[in-house]
Amino acid sequence: MNDTEARNDRVLAAVRQRRELVNDAIPEKLPIVEPERLYEASRYLLDAGGKRLRPTVSLLVAESLADTDASEVEYRSFPTLKQEEEIDVLSAAISVEVIQSFTLIHDDIMDDDDLRRGVPAVHREYDLETAILAGDTLYSKAFEIMIETNAPSDQMVEALDVLASTCTHICEGQALDVAFETRDDVLPEEYLDMVEQKTAVLYGAAACLPAILMGSDEETVEALYGYGLDIGRGFQIQDDVLDLTVPSETLGKQRGSDLVENKQTLLTLHAREHGVDIDSLVETDSVEAVTEAEIDEAVAALEAAGSIDYARDMSAELVESGKERLEVLPDNESRDLLEDLADYLIERGY
Amino acid sequence: MNDTEARNDRVLAAVRQRRELVNDAIPEKLPIVEPERLYEASRYLLDAGGKRLRPTVSLLVAESLADTDASEVEYRSFPTLKQEEEIDVLSAAISVEVIQSFTLIHDDIMDDDDLRRGVPAVHREYDLETAILAGDTLYSKAFEIMIETNAPSDQMVEALDVLASTCTHICEGQALDVAFETRDDVLPEEYLDMVEQKTAVLYGAAACLPAILMGSDEETVEALYGYGLDIGRGFQIQDDVLDLTVPSETLGKQRGSDLVENKQTLLTLHAREHGVDIDSLVETDSVEAVTEAEIDEAVAALEAAGSIDYARDMSAELVESGKERLEVLPDNESRDLLEDLADYLIERGY
Repeated sequence: MNDTEARNDRVLAAVRQRRELVNDAIPEKLPIVEPERLYEASRYLLDAGGKRLRPTVSLLVAESLADTDASEVEYRSFPTLKQEEEIDVLSAAISVEVIQSFTLIHDDIMDDDDLRRGVPAVHREYDLETAILAGDTLYSKAFEIMIETNAPSDQMVEALDVLASTCTHICEGQALDVAFETRDDVLPEEYLDMVEQKTAVLYGAAACLPAILMGSDEETVEALYGYGLDIGRGFQIQDDVLDLTVPSETLGKQRGSDLVENKQTLLTLHAREHGVDIDSLVETDSVEAVTEAEIDEAVAALEAAGSIDYARDMSAELVESGKERLEVLPDNESRDLLEDLADYLIERGY
Repeated sequence: MNDTEARNDRVLAAVRQRRELVNDAIPEKLPIVEPERLYEASRYLLDAGGKRLRPTVSLLVAESLADTDASEVEYRSFPTLKQEEEIDVLSAAISVEVIQSFTLIHDDIMDDDDLRRGVPAVHREYDLETAILAGDTLYSKAFEIMIETNAPSDQMVEALDVLASTCTHICEGQALDVAFETRDDVLPEEYLDMVEQKTAVLYGAAACLPAILMGSDEETVEALYGYGLDIGRGFQIQDDVLDLTVPSETLGKQRGSDLVENKQTLLTLHAREHGVDIDSLVETDSVEAVTEAEIDEAVAALEAAGSIDYARDMSAELVESGKERLEVLPDNESRDLLEDLADYLIERGY
């Protein structure tokens, strides 16, 4: 086992451990009450799984700030920095995951996607009405669950403000994503801005919310928000790279499917800026019919334009930048895990 | 002009006066920023009009609690009860109206309604994706706008909690409404519960939020919430009565359209409980083809079953109950207007 593998194993063990706690708390924080069909639909994707990376980031930040041994931590009565009160930091982690689930349900309707996490999308398993309402219910529940952290009021108001403005940013990012589909002149910088708003801000919120609730100073809160933004963007860009470079059997779907579906990514936008005719990179327009040879040729063209290196360098830079921001945290195992998690996001196989 | 007319004129003048302020503040609190199409869609129904009854309730409650002359009131720097701080109570009123607008946008999608406030529904004027996102954007903006009241943190957290749980109730009520469509055994009590959750809670929030933000005691907050619940239910039931009893030309749509469309209302549920075959009350199934004589006959059947009186009595009782709850407020003109507004809701012509 090499260093990278050992580190990834360590990260995955830490994520798994915290995921268990998150999974156990979800049915308690979001019980199936009347009207049951509504709450079953609201829980459907949450129960279908997910890596719980965002709540794991929240819990690791809280542990690191408290500078306590993770094995002795009681997340539900967690010390604030003034040590005068205790807060339920697990609720903050769940709140972020609930927002994530709300956005997935509504995004799947907007993108008309049929599958999510290996199960039918909520609007397929239930219906359009129920899916809209399930998302809306999770939206308000996320605020209610955040309030269940019982943080002191000043910190709570700031946390709720961050949660609300994060949701606004996600909507703006999704609107940009939809608008980009009908434009053929999107610039790489615009794409990065869209990714920041649609995806990265929720990582930013996941990282800074525990600090806000625990009473950290502004510099710490901002650095942690920056960490989340950086790794969130790095993660998304790396996803685009992996779609092209990882064998189909490892990916669990056709390699290069983004290209087949003419999805705009940082790589294609960079390539177009550098003279590549990206519309004819892959002529076949179904993932069933495309050949590996066709994908190889397209990848070679993107490589020749420097687009793959550009995206790889960008995600590596973002992860490095994110890790540097963690210097505001005490030097402890939880901070090490947040660094390792950042590296894992770009060094994972798929 | 008789007493009722004079009172209704007084109420409408008070509503109109406050509506102007609300209308002026909406573009400021919810400016059209990038991505513009998203914010235009978010503003579309808000700009199309509306009586602004809920924000008017909020402003009247604030005035009454402060016990000041409405003509001298500065809503944006409004005294709290401790007189130590000032809050922007207009923001609270706008926040409630923004929530109302979000629910209308999503409800119109769910009910597949084409028109709202005389203009196309947002998913018709724009598209499904934009309508979902516009509603989602208003949702988080309502929380951000509430925070702009600048109320002391303890009060703010309570207000945000009420706002969140109100939204959860609205989702639950809408889910019940959708579920009732496929049931033929809904009881009047279940219908009333649905109306409370779907419609009345937002009146409850409109009435109690200013009290929470201004630092009122719990008894006052609860009484005001009860006032809102009562008049909200009374208003909805009266709407169902008016659909049957007001001439089509006054209603601006076919009288009895609820019956033609087989919509369940408190009246039809009561009638069914009393042996009326409500499915064959009106055989014609389009509002274009139905005759006034057919509606007259159906109304006579509902009258004979006592269903119209039942609904009228219920809404009158609710309005009386709501008015009594206002005794927690200082005796002043704004309180009188809240009483008059309650009466107006059931004595309005349409």
